Amino acid sequence: MAATATTTPTIVVHGGAWSIPDDIAEASQAGVKTAAEAGYKVLTTSGGSALDAVETAVRILEDDVVFDAGTGSVLNSAGDVEMDAIIMDGRSLRAGSVACVQNIAHPISLARQVMEKTDHTMIAGVGANLFSKELGIPQVPTDQLVTDDARKQWEEYHKYKRAVNELFDSQLGHDTVGAVAVDSEGNVACATSTGGITAKRVGRVGDSPVIGCGAYADNDSGAVSCTGHGEAIMSVTLARTVTFNMEQGASAQAAADKSIAYMKQRVDGTGGVIVVSREGQTGVSFNTRRMPWAVVRDGTIRFGMNPGENFQNEFTNSS
Amino acid sequence: MAATATTTPTIVVHGGAWSIPDDIAEASQAGVKTAAEAGYKVLTTSGGSALDAVETAVRILEDDVVFDAGTGSVLNSAGDVEMDAIIMDGRSLRAGSVACVQNIAHPISLARQVMEKTDHTMIAGVGANLFSKELGIPQVPTDQLVTDDARKQWEEYHKYKRAVNELFDSQLGHDTVGAVAVDSEGNVACATSTGGITAKRVGRVGDSPVIGCGAYADNDSGAVSCTGHGEAIMSVTLARTVTFNMEQGASAQAAADKSIAYMKQRVDGTGGVIVVSREGQTGVSFNTRRMPWAVVRDGTIRFGMNPGENFQNEFTNSS
Repeated sequence: MAATATTTPTIVVHGGAWSIPDDIAEASQAGVKTAAEAGYKVLTTSGGSALDAVETAVRILEDDVVFDAGTGSVLNSAGDVEMDAIIMDGRSLRAGSVACVQNIAHPISLARQVMEKTDHTMIAGVGANLFSKELGIPQVPTDQLVTDDARKQWEEYHKYKRAVNELFDSQLGHDTVGAVAVDSEGNVACATSTGGITAKRVGRVGDSPVIGCGAYADNDSGAVSCTGHGEAIMSVTLARTVTFNMEQGASAQAAADKSIAYMKQRVDGTGGVIVVSREGQTGVSFNTRRMPWAVVRDGTIRFGMNPGENFQNEFTNSS
Repeated sequence: MAATATTTPTIVVHGGAWSIPDDIAEASQAGVKTAAEAGYKVLTTSGGSALDAVETAVRILEDDVVFDAGTGSVLNSAGDVEMDAIIMDGRSLRAGSVACVQNIAHPISLARQVMEKTDHTMIAGVGANLFSKELGIPQVPTDQLVTDDARKQWEEYHKYKRAVNELFDSQLGHDTVGAVAVDSEGNVACATSTGGITAKRVGRVGDSPVIGCGAYADNDSGAVSCTGHGEAIMSVTLARTVTFNMEQGASAQAAADKSIAYMKQRVDGTGGVIVVSREGQTGVSFNTRRMPWAVVRDGTIRFGMNPGENFQNEFTNSS
């Protein structure tokens, strides 16, 4: 698809679709706004690409301890941190992803290196860590990635031994983060990163690093990042379902709503999606209690977290 | 989708889409026929489900040393065997998959246990092996999975250091195996298993175990198993593209042809797909030099390997 010179740079960010408890709600909303603004600055002041913008936004969310990605990731059943991430370039349909990677601060940047420096799309487990060492990426002790909250959740799980399905949509964290963007040249990109779900089995890979499930980007339609019950998202390949709907003429918002409804209908799944079309239309949809999101476009930031919310502020690159 | 009592049990099997050298061509064709016949027996004489049939067929291909799956898997860059497999049930949209699993003979059966015994869809790396040990699945020394041919290919790679993209469609093995079936109750299922590509990076995950890429099954449309250049298949989520085409009214064969052409057009990709619709229509399509395939349905086996081939024999359960 030929790039157009007229596309308005646009970025959408989410901080995970789940029952976000009140005590971290404000920080979650603030975190996605900060990340969206930083990504937008890349799109507009540094001549950055959509790819640079989504990576920048997700790195900020990975560093924010309120989110379950990078620092702040939850613990698996063995008490370790295993993280998943994917990035995809809508120009080439090339993606890079890592699954079950340990001891690095920014899985999203390692995923980008998989895309740009290997012939592969996905690298899992010890292989992902070997690759990070080859690249000279600093190895971070697990303790440095783990917050007190993540450890508390893990202890609670071990006390009550709740099953993963019961945990879901409860107040145990599983707040995947993600970003989608279109740049002035009409290129779209997406990025998704997560620490997964508390007490997941060692080696469990959710939807986040799986192309077409946790994310998808195609310059012919748009870019998508998903969050929610990973296994349900995988059953319907949620991100690719959104772009298929767009290929058939649905707007970004209609495609988002339709795909979330489809997941509910087919597998009773809960979650959320953010979407940007190649023309810069945006879509935000979720059927969980909350999903913090923010859109920056044309000097304006829109945001919300509870159903129906759509706040709006002016935004300048100096703010 | 309500099951119908009138569906004719049907199974389709493939043995990988690539430039199969002449010296193993006959054994490859024979192998897929044997597996398809065994799967068909499950469908017709044991009252077995589509799920049982595809697992049975793929286990036979995993045991057949001519195929790059289970015993006969190729070696990664470190000289180890890392295997990927997925199985999916079209009734529930539930799937189970394992990635980079080592030291077991039948990855497809471990994938089924992921589907049936955990809340997860995909388990990778050491976690997959931990799970296999929990289940009491015998651990097999790597040497027992490796053929002389696989070792020779690995040595050739190390001598010439060819890149993965160059290897592809060459005569170095990457013959993923797969099966799709519909049973008399109208339930569809698919299974895909592979040792990947020679000299792949440690931890590389190809399309095979990735839902919507290497396989997809939905009782509302049909079941699909893919093979070929994994990274290209992932870029277009090939299996899900096939079922999307079927949802829009394409026959199994038209959906297969259309999706292979789409992959070629979008990312210059090569590979193959086998398809069965919920009504028992079949589709076989590939754009590599060869892909051994076999269809058993209504007392007849059809098969081929080179473009345009479509041989036919009678088949009885006693044969």
